[in-house]
Amino acid sequence: MSFIKVNATSHFSFNNLPYGIFSTTNNPKRRIGVAIGDQILDLSLIKSLFQGPVISKHQYVFDQPTLNAFMALGYEAWQEARKTLQMLLSANESTLRDDVSLRSSAFVNQSVATMHLPANIGDYTDFYSSKDHATNVGIMFRGKDNALMPNWLRLPVGYHGRASSVVVSGTEIHRPVGQMRPDQTKPPVFGPSQQLDFELEMAFFVGGQTSLGQRIPIEKAHEHIFGMVLMNDWSARDIQAWEYVPLGPFLGKNFGTTISPWVVPMEALLPFVEPNSIQNLARFSLFLLPISSPTTPGKTLNDYNTICKSNFKYMYWTMKQQLAHHTVNGCNIRPGDLMASGTISGPDAESFGSMLELSWRGSKSITLGDKEIRSFLKDGDEVTMTGYCQGDGYRVGFGECVGTILPSLQH
Amino acid sequence: MSFIKVNATSHFSFNNLPYGIFSTTNNPKRRIGVAIGDQILDLSLIKSLFQGPVISKHQYVFDQPTLNAFMALGYEAWQEARKTLQMLLSANESTLRDDVSLRSSAFVNQSVATMHLPANIGDYTDFYSSKDHATNVGIMFRGKDNALMPNWLRLPVGYHGRASSVVVSGTEIHRPVGQMRPDQTKPPVFGPSQQLDFELEMAFFVGGQTSLGQRIPIEKAHEHIFGMVLMNDWSARDIQAWEYVPLGPFLGKNFGTTISPWVVPMEALLPFVEPNSIQNLARFSLFLLPISSPTTPGKTLNDYNTICKSNFKYMYWTMKQQLAHHTVNGCNIRPGDLMASGTISGPDAESFGSMLELSWRGSKSITLGDKEIRSFLKDGDEVTMTGYCQGDGYRVGFGECVGTILPSLQH
Repeated sequence: MSFIKVNATSHFSFNNLPYGIFSTTNNPKRRIGVAIGDQILDLSLIKSLFQGPVISKHQYVFDQPTLNAFMALGYEAWQEARKTLQMLLSANESTLRDDVSLRSSAFVNQSVATMHLPANIGDYTDFYSSKDHATNVGIMFRGKDNALMPNWLRLPVGYHGRASSVVVSGTEIHRPVGQMRPDQTKPPVFGPSQQLDFELEMAFFVGGQTSLGQRIPIEKAHEHIFGMVLMNDWSARDIQAWEYVPLGPFLGKNFGTTISPWVVPMEALLPFVEPNSIQNLARFSLFLLPISSPTTPGKTLNDYNTICKSNFKYMYWTMKQQLAHHTVNGCNIRPGDLMASGTISGPDAESFGSMLELSWRGSKSITLGDKEIRSFLKDGDEVTMTGYCQGDGYRVGFGECVGTILPSLQH
Repeated sequence: MSFIKVNATSHFSFNNLPYGIFSTTNNPKRRIGVAIGDQILDLSLIKSLFQGPVISKHQYVFDQPTLNAFMALGYEAWQEARKTLQMLLSANESTLRDDVSLRSSAFVNQSVATMHLPANIGDYTDFYSSKDHATNVGIMFRGKDNALMPNWLRLPVGYHGRASSVVVSGTEIHRPVGQMRPDQTKPPVFGPSQQLDFELEMAFFVGGQTSLGQRIPIEKAHEHIFGMVLMNDWSARDIQAWEYVPLGPFLGKNFGTTISPWVVPMEALLPFVEPNSIQNLARFSLFLLPISSPTTPGKTLNDYNTICKSNFKYMYWTMKQQLAHHTVNGCNIRPGDLMASGTISGPDAESFGSMLELSWRGSKSITLGDKEIRSFLKDGDEVTMTGYCQGDGYRVGFGECVGTILPSLQH
């Protein structure tokens, strides 16, 4: 229990303590915070309270505008920092609780904070690790008999994404324009994408680093996984379908990728891991994916139309397997690298994590409330992803990953 | 003419003036230099001499450990800096020429300098823009009738590469291990790649930046191309062949990508551009690709076996087209982004820019001198790429892009 009051439905319980980068109107400097309840604890103001053997020598990491330096310190440092935070925030500990002046400056209400990207992302990799998603897409594009490629069950298929266009929740996304070939009997056309989609994903931030040529064995992989966020891997299906052979997705993806601002430490998620006999899967939380159109300011989550509910437990390949695979050839990693799951789809139609699957490539309509229908996203549509793990009277949640589609820019 | 003596065969003539990052044993600080003849002019020591209207307000860019800040200043600043350098280095100008003390400190012999990566590379993109290369690979993997994919002539096909493993010339590369399927009738195997290859490429560094949603029209693309380097896009063909469907190359490429250290400004290359009626191609230089095995220290370029000679003029898609395409969907660029050509192959067998093509997928041997033969690279092989534009009595060259293959690391 903390001396900070936390509602039972809050994503940011005492058991969570996610890290993020925030600023305020009064203090535009970007700094590291920890979310608890509806508050943010400003670590830049309490860095001297980290007195453990590792962090006491590296208190500067909590005075940075990104989490990269903290991520670089490694596994032991993260565990130590978390213990210190649990101590400082506990109801029994007077250091912060009883220091009226420090409390009034070190805590900021989340409602007045602007959130930023948690880290400078050196490289962003997207995997393709849901068997249901890979099978669904395979059936649509290649037919039932060739749905899963021969390599899919042998290694976690992935590809490099664009780091520059990874943005924080709330950033508006312009509908991309590009070349498409909707009619295979005619030449390609150029214009705004007509099949704009979301992809419900989660991603982890890498910590520590390796040298070129060095690999991370799967037994050590957890020491390089700092924490997780929600991700919307926006996808222009028509651009992607035309461009992706033979080198993979490019402009169909790199116009924007949205992540939630709070990085949930793996330590907070460990109580929710469930073993799996085939693959050592991490089963976490129930994900809701709501969508509304047009955007109405002031809406709460309950006003949205939930168009899919999925679960991270549906993933076939684990994060540890992804990281071990990524480095098995000697590819080096850096703190702040981001590695995403790929679309999280489950076996049931309501658990499909993309409109491509929900609308079965546009052949079905997705109904929003009473009237609105969709096959793909319209301008003005706002997509919110959220998810949490339910504990006994508390939640370990990810907050929200939100993005609104704006019309294409004219040039 | 400069007061610094430059041989007619030197790559670094007064007409070149490429930028690089160097350090010395006496001064391990990374700093910006300009190559001329066998010398490096240390810009950190003469930054106050840049008195033009733009750079005079941003002299700090020449006191950085990378070129990113200078690249960020944009086209006008680059032109101004080049004019200042041409003035300061000219035989008629006394400022540097007659200042014995400044000359002795500001010039460093290239032989005592260690070169580093020119920039922090935010994102690395690799295109696939040689029609001959794409056709050759297509014939080998899909047969003559399906060699070029339908999209290839419609847009410059490209994909995202890994930025963390882009290294500077001279960095040793460990043979990657990974999963391959040499026999399609059997399950895949795991081990060191047996089809390790080079790819002869060139790459350009991006300058300036754009916001998410903004595109760069082709008429403005030259304002965002800072300069060019040689690139060896090492490729493990067996790993790549197994993994690349459907999301493109991943571990077959991201174990290492080598670039030459000196970034040749586009201004220096403009005199060598030739117009082309179909595509506005930039025709530059003759490229030599020598290979030796095993590595013998002290060898000069003449001791090497030249196994291919290609030319950048063979490219079908231009750099301007690549950049316009990359941003047409609103993908944002940052200074220091690296965009590569793809393998530079020409119409003749000797101009093929990879061993995959030279050995026609291992079915032919490549002869080195009298005895040695190769289909793909052996441990100990050293690959050197070099290239230049031949002017009237001078060269604008790229120096060398060198890498040696080490055995796989045991774990």
